[in-house]
Amino acid sequence: MKIGVVGAGAVGSYYGGLLARAGSEVTFLLRRDWEAVIRRGLWIDDQGKESFHLYPVRGFRRTEEMGSCGIVLIALKATAREALRDLLPPLLQPGTVLVAMQNGLGNEEWLAEVFPNHPILGGIVFGCLIRTAPGRVQNVGFGKIELGAYAGAGEFLLREVALRFERAGVPCSVVEDLEAARWRKLAWNIPFNGVSVAAGGCDVQEILRDAELRRFAAGLMEEVAAVAEKRELPLPEDWTERMMADTAQMGAYRPSTLVDFLAGRPIEVEAIWGEPLRRAQKMGVPTPLLQAIYALLRSLDRRSGVRREITPS
Amino acid sequence: MKIGVVGAGAVGSYYGGLLARAGSEVTFLLRRDWEAVIRRGLWIDDQGKESFHLYPVRGFRRTEEMGSCGIVLIALKATAREALRDLLPPLLQPGTVLVAMQNGLGNEEWLAEVFPNHPILGGIVFGCLIRTAPGRVQNVGFGKIELGAYAGAGEFLLREVALRFERAGVPCSVVEDLEAARWRKLAWNIPFNGVSVAAGGCDVQEILRDAELRRFAAGLMEEVAAVAEKRELPLPEDWTERMMADTAQMGAYRPSTLVDFLAGRPIEVEAIWGEPLRRAQKMGVPTPLLQAIYALLRSLDRRSGVRREITPS
Repeated sequence: MKIGVVGAGAVGSYYGGLLARAGSEVTFLLRRDWEAVIRRGLWIDDQGKESFHLYPVRGFRRTEEMGSCGIVLIALKATAREALRDLLPPLLQPGTVLVAMQNGLGNEEWLAEVFPNHPILGGIVFGCLIRTAPGRVQNVGFGKIELGAYAGAGEFLLREVALRFERAGVPCSVVEDLEAARWRKLAWNIPFNGVSVAAGGCDVQEILRDAELRRFAAGLMEEVAAVAEKRELPLPEDWTERMMADTAQMGAYRPSTLVDFLAGRPIEVEAIWGEPLRRAQKMGVPTPLLQAIYALLRSLDRRSGVRREITPS
Repeated sequence: MKIGVVGAGAVGSYYGGLLARAGSEVTFLLRRDWEAVIRRGLWIDDQGKESFHLYPVRGFRRTEEMGSCGIVLIALKATAREALRDLLPPLLQPGTVLVAMQNGLGNEEWLAEVFPNHPILGGIVFGCLIRTAPGRVQNVGFGKIELGAYAGAGEFLLREVALRFERAGVPCSVVEDLEAARWRKLAWNIPFNGVSVAAGGCDVQEILRDAELRRFAAGLMEEVAAVAEKRELPLPEDWTERMMADTAQMGAYRPSTLVDFLAGRPIEVEAIWGEPLRRAQKMGVPTPLLQAIYALLRSLDRRSGVRREITPS
C-alpha cells in the first residue's frame, strides 16, 4: 500500500524516511527542500539509534505527480491546513486513510468535514525532531507515536498502520480515546511550546532552570490535568513531575513553535492553545493561565504576521 | 524651600516644570537632555489645559552642582535605584523630604533603608506622560497625584508638599494608607504595562479591543482586587469596569514600560510585578496570573539585557 507524505518538514521526513527504509513505497510532497532531497537524498540522524541515508527519494513538487495512495501522512502545520483542500484530492482513492500527524486539537475534525468519505486516524508524535538542513533531520529524543481512530472511522485499518510503523522501528501504540491522547500531548505542548515563545525565545532547559518560568509551565500543566480529570482520564499522581523529568532529558531543545516563530512563520495558535481553551470552557473547567498565554501568543503571532506582510521574504 | 528633581524624564520634567512655573525654586538633574533643556528650555504640552514653556531652566549634570534642597522629587526608574546612593547625598540637608514618584512597590522601603534620617513620602502619578523629544513632555490624560507618608514619617510635611502641587495646578490628594494607594495604581500598571510588553508591543487601545488580551488584563486586575480585599481595602463594585472605561479615554497610549522595553532599556520588573507578587504570596492571596506575567517579563527583560551587553548603544 503506497504511502504519501504531505508536509516533509522534520516530522514528515523522519517518519516517511523510516517507513521507506523498512520497505514501504513512500512518496513525498516536497517544496523548499525538493532540490536538495532529489540530489542528495534524506539523512536521518537518529540519536541513540543508528543513522541512515535514504537515496533515491521519491519526491515531487506537486501532489498530481505522486499518484494515489493507500495511506497519507499529513505533517503539514495546522496553520497551513487550508492548503490541504487542493493538495489532497490527487492522492485519494476510495478508502485512502488520512493520518493527521499535527499537534493540537481540531485537525481530525477539519479533515472529517472536508474529506468525509475517508477514514481518519490521528498520530501523536512524541519526538524531538529538528530539521537541521535541507534534507537533514535529527531526532534528539524519544520518537514514539500514539495512533488512534477518529470518531471510530478506520478502526479496521488502525492496527495495520500501527504495524507498519512498528516494523519500521517506530514504537507505536494504539489508543482507544484519541482526544484524551491529544490532551496528554498538549500537557507538554501547551506549557513548553507556549512559554518558549512568550518568554522571548527560551529552550526547554532554560524554562526548567528558571524557577518562575517553570512554575508558570507547571501551572499550565495542572490546568490541562484538570481538563483530563473532567474527561475522566485520571493521570498518575506524580505526572507533572515525570513530564518535567522527561523534559530535562531533552537538552537545549527548542519546541517547533519557537523554531517557527523565530523564522517568522505562523505559529499553531489555534490548534495548540485556542481550540483546547474553547473545549475547556465548554466543559466548564477554569483555565485562566491557558487563556492568558493564548491571548499573548495570538497577539505575538499577529504582530509577526504584520511584519511578514511589510517585508515579504 | 528649594525643590530638586532627580530623573528628568517625562514625570520629573512635567511636575518639576509645573512647580517651577508656579514660582517654586526648582533645580533639575539632567543627563541625556541637558543640552537641549539648557538651550531651549522645557516645553510642557498639557492636553486639555494650557501648554507652556519654561525658560531658563536650572538644570545640572551633577547633583553636586545643584546644592541642597528641602524637597527632592525622585522620578528615576526603579531599575536605576542603586544610582541614588551617590546622586542624593549632595542634595540633602537635615530634614530634606524625599518623595518617591516611581511606580510599583518597594521604593519607599529602599529609601528608608539607605537614607534613614529623612522623612519619606510616596507620590503616585496618574498621568499619561510622554517625553516626545528632548525637553518636550506631553500629558495625554489625567495627571493627578496621590501623596502619602511612608511609615508615618513626614506626616507633618505631607500637607505642605501637597499644597505646593495644588498651587501649581496639579490635583493632589493626600492618602492615609500609602501602600493601599500603591496597590490601586498597580491595579492599572500590572495589567496594562505588563500585557503591552508581553503581547509584543500593544498600546492600551489594542489591549482593550482584543477580547482575549482584555480578558487577561481584567483577570490580572481581579487578582490585585483580591489583594486589596485581603488588606481590607474594599473597592467599589464596578471598579474593574471603571478602570477599563478610564483607559478607553487614553487613546493609543503606550505605557512607560513598553516605551522603555522598545527602546532597549531595563523595565521595572521587580517594582511593578515581582514585589507585588511576593507580598501577595506573603498575604496568602493566590495570584497565578501575576506569577505568569512576572515570569515572562523577567525573562524578556533579561534577554533584552543580554542584547544590550552584546551591542552597547
